[in-house]
Amino acid sequence: MVNVAILGYGVVGSGVAEVIHKNANHISEKAANEITVKYVLDVRDFPDAPFGMRFVKDFSIIENDPEVQVVVETIGGTGAALEFTKRCLAAGKNVVTSNKELVAEYGYELLHMARERNLNYLFEASVGGGIPIIRPISQCLAANELNEVYGILNGTTNYILTRMVRAGLTFQDALREAQAKGYAEKDPTADIEGYDACRKICILSALSFGSHVYPRQVATEGISKITLRDVGYAESGKRKIKLLGRAVRLPDGKISAYVAPHLVPDGSSLSNVEDVFNGIVVKGDAIGDVMFYGRGAGKFPTASAVVADVIDAAKHFKARKYLDWLPGGDDVTVDSAILPTRWYIRANATQEQAGNSFGEIEMLRSPDAPAGEIAFLTAEFNKREIETRGTDLDILARIRVLG
Amino acid sequence: MVNVAILGYGVVGSGVAEVIHKNANHISEKAANEITVKYVLDVRDFPDAPFGMRFVKDFSIIENDPEVQVVVETIGGTGAALEFTKRCLAAGKNVVTSNKELVAEYGYELLHMARERNLNYLFEASVGGGIPIIRPISQCLAANELNEVYGILNGTTNYILTRMVRAGLTFQDALREAQAKGYAEKDPTADIEGYDACRKICILSALSFGSHVYPRQVATEGISKITLRDVGYAESGKRKIKLLGRAVRLPDGKISAYVAPHLVPDGSSLSNVEDVFNGIVVKGDAIGDVMFYGRGAGKFPTASAVVADVIDAAKHFKARKYLDWLPGGDDVTVDSAILPTRWYIRANATQEQAGNSFGEIEMLRSPDAPAGEIAFLTAEFNKREIETRGTDLDILARIRVLG
Repeated sequence: MVNVAILGYGVVGSGVAEVIHKNANHISEKAANEITVKYVLDVRDFPDAPFGMRFVKDFSIIENDPEVQVVVETIGGTGAALEFTKRCLAAGKNVVTSNKELVAEYGYELLHMARERNLNYLFEASVGGGIPIIRPISQCLAANELNEVYGILNGTTNYILTRMVRAGLTFQDALREAQAKGYAEKDPTADIEGYDACRKICILSALSFGSHVYPRQVATEGISKITLRDVGYAESGKRKIKLLGRAVRLPDGKISAYVAPHLVPDGSSLSNVEDVFNGIVVKGDAIGDVMFYGRGAGKFPTASAVVADVIDAAKHFKARKYLDWLPGGDDVTVDSAILPTRWYIRANATQEQAGNSFGEIEMLRSPDAPAGEIAFLTAEFNKREIETRGTDLDILARIRVLG
Repeated sequence: MVNVAILGYGVVGSGVAEVIHKNANHISEKAANEITVKYVLDVRDFPDAPFGMRFVKDFSIIENDPEVQVVVETIGGTGAALEFTKRCLAAGKNVVTSNKELVAEYGYELLHMARERNLNYLFEASVGGGIPIIRPISQCLAANELNEVYGILNGTTNYILTRMVRAGLTFQDALREAQAKGYAEKDPTADIEGYDACRKICILSALSFGSHVYPRQVATEGISKITLRDVGYAESGKRKIKLLGRAVRLPDGKISAYVAPHLVPDGSSLSNVEDVFNGIVVKGDAIGDVMFYGRGAGKFPTASAVVADVIDAAKHFKARKYLDWLPGGDDVTVDSAILPTRWYIRANATQEQAGNSFGEIEMLRSPDAPAGEIAFLTAEFNKREIETRGTDLDILARIRVLG
């Protein structure tokens, strides 16, 4: 029998309890062990608590119960979640989490604590919800030198962009719709400004390249400035605007990671990733491109990834998993402003002025373009170069182009 | 130090040696152990053998060397591969393979032998080349009850179908081109008649549903009868023809698996899987749809999956992996003829005759249709029903429609 404690009975935490209960036989078989939720920690009261779980408000009951072998942390954030995770590891308990913020900020430290104690700290659910991605990168692609990882990492913004393209909604209207459907929170900042995607690309970078990348090292731009005019021009160029997190290992071994909107070509593997779905592409020297696709969020997809880690922890009490990376630091990363890509530019200018500033350009057409407005794609420039060029033009939008 | 022996120095076997050599540092770090190829078994002579490997022609040298802990079987087929795999397991050696035919026919037996000896028998490379799929299904999705798995499992046929759509080549011309490019073998039967996809869906079924499904239990149809007329009609209905392997767990727990061409809708996750790429969709009760996408074949993608398993075996000498399933049998599977789908029909008939035979139909248009020919999509029928209906029509083609 494996006793589990769940910290935080919110959307994911209650989903974990439900998945463990609902698929009990199947899960016990996979884990070669019966898995039971012994405690749930939450400050709130749940008088009708199901599944015979014991609700506690005092963390030390869990900390001091030697029968608890696996703790599921679904509190979120870096406050109590950090403290309790450390205390669980110190008490010899394996920890499983969906908390991307904690892993992005303190992943190295927590993995190091876990390693020293021969414990597992697992976080499959922290990126891509229920899409298997952490384990495939760390294990299945282990024979590859990975040199790039990128993708649609945030379902909320992808839903908004999809609705702008398909239904012609403005950003604000699409956001309101996403909120009404429960896909976006009341305060949508973390999603729409790219902070959520930033945390996820930090975790993917660390896994893929072996050194911690901290959120402050990742230039992060969201989608709140994307207009229907940009969506329309992109469409006329057979492209879609998607918010991507992207991390590259440069030839000198340094890592450059950023979050920004991109125009991706129709027919590319990411262009069909719509609505709240996520798609993550990993490039390896032997395998080439691999993509993982599925629901990137939601109660049960996320809970199922957490429970898969619980099963894994239960099977590996004496064997640590592959997860591990170096502490990182400012000598490991490089500002993404040096990464060259093509660019989409919308400006009040003539084609001749644009050509003078940017050299060879590919014009995009829009039937209802206001007088004087043009949009075009440039050759490859890095961000510094693109900002230097065209300073004499009235530039309305500037978005990276991938592929 | 972990000593590896490679059985068969063909495309995959030599790729494995090269990947282990090329990424040696990285791989040793991942495995927490130095990995060396001690022997290669091949009946042929390789006078310029690289990497200091010792070529042997006598299997018993490997079998009797207690230093060999992991054996890579890349012989293929079910002859010597089966015998040597059994003798390796009997001698206490872990075995890693890319041999889908062997796993599809003898997977249960070999996993059982491995389990009894606390050894690993690993075959990530047997499905989807280098795409991580075996481990994600068996571990990452472990908290889900899976109820369906399907996908484009064969790169050769997908290349041929892609060229028929994009370049308007006939099946024969596209096949010749695939052979010229090295994507199809001189004798292309196993690919174009669906036998290769059949073996892969057997393995995916066993992993997903927990019981061995044997190739003889899988109705298998290839793509050699697909014509450009069918491709054109499909296109007019915003669909593409793809060869799918598909396995479903029915509400009574029985498994139904088959391989057949399907019309899949443009914009669906599989419709963008083109050329030699593979895409595999798994449906779970908690996660919903997840897709895995990448190069399904080729020397280095496949070799990288084999080497990932070697690393895994090296890390788990005393812990078996999750892989395991029941022996299966005829009471476990059900003929796929009972599975309902929509159908595409091309016939020499009138729309009225078609309506009389099939009820509600959706007509497809082709500008260059010969006089008297029509094509249409039906409502859902199983294969038996669809064969019973329309017996009075001159039916030219009948293809399942997915979605």
